Amino acid sequence: MSKVRVAAFSISLDGFGAGPRQDLQNPLGVRGTELHGWFFHTDIFKKMHGEGVGTKGIDNEIAAQSFENVGAWILGRNMFGPIRGAWKDDSWKGWWGANPPYHTPVFVLTHHARPALEMEGGTTFRFVTNGIESALEKAKEAANGKDVRIGGGASVIRQYLVAGQIDEMHLAVSPVLLGEGENLFSGINLHELGFTVSKTVAGENATHVFIRKT
Amino acid sequence: MSKVRVAAFSISLDGFGAGPRQDLQNPLGVRGTELHGWFFHTDIFKKMHGEGVGTKGIDNEIAAQSFENVGAWILGRNMFGPIRGAWKDDSWKGWWGANPPYHTPVFVLTHHARPALEMEGGTTFRFVTNGIESALEKAKEAANGKDVRIGGGASVIRQYLVAGQIDEMHLAVSPVLLGEGENLFSGINLHELGFTVSKTVAGENATHVFIRKT
Repeated sequence: MSKVRVAAFSISLDGFGAGPRQDLQNPLGVRGTELHGWFFHTDIFKKMHGEGVGTKGIDNEIAAQSFENVGAWILGRNMFGPIRGAWKDDSWKGWWGANPPYHTPVFVLTHHARPALEMEGGTTFRFVTNGIESALEKAKEAANGKDVRIGGGASVIRQYLVAGQIDEMHLAVSPVLLGEGENLFSGINLHELGFTVSKTVAGENATHVFIRKT
Repeated sequence: MSKVRVAAFSISLDGFGAGPRQDLQNPLGVRGTELHGWFFHTDIFKKMHGEGVGTKGIDNEIAAQSFENVGAWILGRNMFGPIRGAWKDDSWKGWWGANPPYHTPVFVLTHHARPALEMEGGTTFRFVTNGIESALEKAKEAANGKDVRIGGGASVIRQYLVAGQIDEMHLAVSPVLLGEGENLFSGINLHELGFTVSKTVAGENATHVFIRKT
């Protein structure tokens, strides 16, 4: 069955999904890259970025699963870029270069309209200005029976959680304390929203927690 | 060297160290006991409470370490009991019966003076009304070269963290979502306070994270 899911979303021990003060030098906020150390070491990440061979253990296996059966992505505006407010022009094409690692339609939530952006490798960025429900509807249609993956950031995930739209989440808890940034849990009562932890798996460099609606 | 430490402090995946609405029926707040499932199964817990034999794996070993070399404890008022405001009389003697599991002097932070309470098995509750620094000073003296263990709750730990008094923490992250209650991390920037994660150990029923000042 087609699901709406969060997968391989990295958080710090203190619950932050990104560091503060995102800019061109810090796409994930200050110290945000530390959240993803577990992923950067994996073979799947290295292959995706043409960096040779990586680890092939539990972290790698779980990272690989996060990409399986994904038919469309939804991203918040800040995950797409550091630009705030209206687009000055169409020169910003995401953080990922000519061939982004999505290879599906990607719906970017923004308040500012922009034409769709076709990239190499099957990724098309589509900019949705009329809210999260509309983006999800479009993503489900584009996914064509496959899953919709909510890529983040934390604020976008919180919005979809509160809207009751997310079926399951895989969080990768990294052994890092950020202390500030975008907190995944703040103002969210996941228990009240019907979620429980279904499984915890110790990876080499992160603890993988699987959460689903019961 | 004598340390001030937090040990075997259980939190939920979303950072809560106790549930909400503590009362006589819910000493750890609503659903708070779910945080401690990993501990309740261990042999050391079962032995402490005369409940026969428990598990002898990683959780048990780490639980045992949490009691080693402890010369004095500090507890918040709510960890000692559900009573708020002035003590009506001296009838409340803690949650633990005649022989509490401390076996050392225990300094209880409160705004309301009360005579010391000598229990069986070497536990003496002493009530400290002049603040956390004074309690720590007394506890260090009583510990006589051994460690001072800050038992909790979350609010007491946060106060000692902010005061720069805690050397290390062992947190047991349980596969549970509380959604509300006393959050250990709220308003605290552990990174800024100089803490990093030194080790993560996957136990049978919790993930043990060791944090220390660098």
